[in-house]
Amino acid sequence: MADEITEALEKIFSVDSVLYQERGFQRRIGFGERPALLNIDLANAWTRPGNAFSCENMDVIIPAVQALLTASRAAGIPIVFTTTAYDVTASSPSDMGLWHKKIPVELLQAGSEDCQIDDRIAPLDSEFVIQKKRASGFHGTYLAGFLRAHQVDTVIITGVTMAGCVRHTTEDAIAEGFRPIVVREAVGDRVPGVTEWNLFDIDAKFGDVESLARVLEYLGKIENEGNT
Amino acid sequence: MADEITEALEKIFSVDSVLYQERGFQRRIGFGERPALLNIDLANAWTRPGNAFSCENMDVIIPAVQALLTASRAAGIPIVFTTTAYDVTASSPSDMGLWHKKIPVELLQAGSEDCQIDDRIAPLDSEFVIQKKRASGFHGTYLAGFLRAHQVDTVIITGVTMAGCVRHTTEDAIAEGFRPIVVREAVGDRVPGVTEWNLFDIDAKFGDVESLARVLEYLGKIENEGNT
Amino acid sequence: MADEITEALEKIFSVDSVLYQERGFQRRIGFGERPALLNIDLANAWTRPGNAFSCENMDVIIPAVQALLTASRAAGIPIVFTTTAYDVTASSPSDMGLWHKKIPVELLQAGSEDCQIDDRIAPLDSEFVIQKKRASGFHGTYLAGFLRAHQVDTVIITGVTMAGCVRHTTEDAIAEGFRPIVVREAVGDRVPGVTEWNLFDIDAKFGDVESLARVLEYLGKIENEGNT
Amino acid sequence: MADEITEALEKIFSVDSVLYQERGFQRRIGFGERPALLNIDLANAWTRPGNAFSCENMDVIIPAVQALLTASRAAGIPIVFTTTAYDVTASSPSDMGLWHKKIPVELLQAGSEDCQIDDRIAPLDSEFVIQKKRASGFHGTYLAGFLRAHQVDTVIITGVTMAGCVRHTTEDAIAEGFRPIVVREAVGDRVPGVTEWNLFDIDAKFGDVESLARVLEYLGKIENEGNT
Repeated sequence: MADEITEALEKIFSVDSVLYQERGFQRRIGFGERPALLNIDLANAWTRPGNAFSCENMDVIIPAVQALLTASRAAGIPIVFTTTAYDVTASSPSDMGLWHKKIPVELLQAGSEDCQIDDRIAPLDSEFVIQKKRASGFHGTYLAGFLRAHQVDTVIITGVTMAGCVRHTTEDAIAEGFRPIVVREAVGDRVPGVTEWNLFDIDAKFGDVESLARVLEYLGKIENEGNT
Repeated sequence: MADEITEALEKIFSVDSVLYQERGFQRRIGFGERPALLNIDLANAWTRPGNAFSCENMDVIIPAVQALLTASRAAGIPIVFTTTAYDVTASSPSDMGLWHKKIPVELLQAGSEDCQIDDRIAPLDSEFVIQKKRASGFHGTYLAGFLRAHQVDTVIITGVTMAGCVRHTTEDAIAEGFRPIVVREAVGDRVPGVTEWNLFDIDAKFGDVESLARVLEYLGKIENEGNT
Repeated sequence: MADEITEALEKIFSVDSVLYQERGFQRRIGFGERPALLNIDLANAWTRPGNAFSCENMDVIIPAVQALLTASRAAGIPIVFTTTAYDVTASSPSDMGLWHKKIPVELLQAGSEDCQIDDRIAPLDSEFVIQKKRASGFHGTYLAGFLRAHQVDTVIITGVTMAGCVRHTTEDAIAEGFRPIVVREAVGDRVPGVTEWNLFDIDAKFGDVESLARVLEYLGKIENEGNT
Repeated sequence: MADEITEALEKIFSVDSVLYQERGFQRRIGFGERPALLNIDLANAWTRPGNAFSCENMDVIIPAVQALLTASRAAGIPIVFTTTAYDVTASSPSDMGLWHKKIPVELLQAGSEDCQIDDRIAPLDSEFVIQKKRASGFHGTYLAGFLRAHQVDTVIITGVTMAGCVRHTTEDAIAEGFRPIVVREAVGDRVPGVTEWNLFDIDAKFGDVESLARVLEYLGKIENEGNT
């Protein structure tokens, strides 16, 4: 089934890309000079099996993120992780806002192991974990101000899910004045076709979708300026 | 080709919906008590042929929006239009931010006929046109504060494009605390498959996709409280 | 000294109020129908002596907040606390952004007793504590979306400091579409004259400054609708 | 009277500054490397006599802003003007949100001469005028994203009023990650004492208050990189 879906989608993208390119879409935003690495929702609820939020393809995504973490730490760039979590049992009214009316966010209890970043890609003590309540890593968080204060101009984006938090984060990133670079091998979702489609939309309109190899090459050229 | 694409996508959505429903996604957010009508980028650059931004299916979209405008005016609810426009020729540095590095927003000159709302669905003098710079109607605008000041809890969303401004607006709407209702017949895009896929993603995670008939029925029951 | 300052300020306010009222400022925004209680930075660093952030007048402020908490819990309205805290020792670059370049926020270690809400006004398990990084309770937090999702139209504001977090929160509250009511006996600061001057500015332009008695009377009339 | 007020306030600030400095407040944020000039609400309603919004001291403020414009244009830095304006007569419900319940914003009709920038400091065609609805130049506008897209790290702030739009803009600027520099001779208000007090609060907590001479000296050293 997955192959059939991929094949069907590739045909559609091929037709659509002709029109986009004739019209001046699908341009390259390019890499800037001061990147940050932004890892969206790579907590156990998404990276491990058996959860309503579990995603596919972790045997590719986790090693890709590991490689990006190694390169980013060597380059000394800011690294941010997000997770999505709520005071589910206690709060009245709920910090889930309206989102539990669409998806099962009531399963994401703040402080639970489910909401902690997967220990295969564990943050160092010096790296941030932002606990967000909405899909975008920028929405209702101090992320944009934090990145600006540190003069970041480019966000390398990894994580899940493509149709949810990664997509909304990417849209917000360019709106907030940052160049979004989405790493193809480091993002995913949980239903067939969704990753491909959302990468296609993003590359057409909101940010550049780049291969892991190309992003690692870019990070290798960033000079480590030490902590400022 | 369009039929083939639709058929291929329907198969994918069918498979994906089984998984989503097993997992507790695709819930109904439902209609609230105080709606506003939000028409995204139905300006001539998008609604008329011959522009890089021109969209398909206007023979369905325009009448749907006309019906929604009539019902919304009868109900006395707030009506907002957005357009996207820039001081293209003059500004240095540009108010396009980074977006012209992905899509041809340099074609959208503020004050031009292209950026005016299509006169088949012209705003009344009492209705707002918000000139935005980014994809979302909420991003970098006073829309959220305006809607909250008038105690709106639900946004009925129409317009274009599904993969761009309508999608981002819908994601922001639920994040900002409003129930997004996207009207299936009143939204569109410019490349095959994009509208269907983005409606599928939105209905799974961010807002309810509803038929024009159902939304008109809902609006018919809203009491007109007059201006407050 | 304090009496002299108060006297000098009262004279200035009297002169200024004449001009403001002639010009149509100092209007009443009034109470709405769905209030929330918003307690700004009443954590130990501010409410207890011996800290760079310690504020004056806690023998008045704490009982006032206690009374407001009792009334708000009886009315069943949303109650939110904020604190300001950072990953001071570990993070590189810092989540303090630029603020430690003006004030000693490096003293506010997340998780420390200093950053916990004073236990004389301890939150119930069902009440939120939002850990913010900036002055305003709305800036870089999910507060506005949360309040809108629960259809709040009025925010009763207490806490410290008047020239910092309370002031910025009040300005943002009206911009976001909420009626700000600042409770005179429940707010304070750490240097003479600052509380009086900022209350004067706020009442002229951004929100109503009301007495504790009047706010308690208002809360007494709010019907407890139970949890929704 | 004005002298008496100034004298009384100077005494208070002197006392308060001792405490602030002992506690580690009133630090210097300093100038960054990529400034923008941000002129708040220097439209005729504020700069000319005879309006409810008219401010004092324009014989000092206007020449100061003229000098800053000349220096900023020579340096080739981004220049932004704001004005506050509404669709007063037509809109229902109003884009004034809740603000007309505190101050007479119903006098500020979009498109009127009152809401145009004073022609003694007229924007060039290449410079932005942002029409805002709230006090802060950042709130409900694309300003933060625009500045970040052009890698600005410092905002030189002028205009009126100190207790309203200049104050809120400055608070938001540091929260958004920009270094705020408020130019003492280039800001004002309409009632005695307000300018002094708000400059005192800002310098203690949110941004540096600097003399015109010092800011001009700084701008003189910025290299003009041409348009990017």
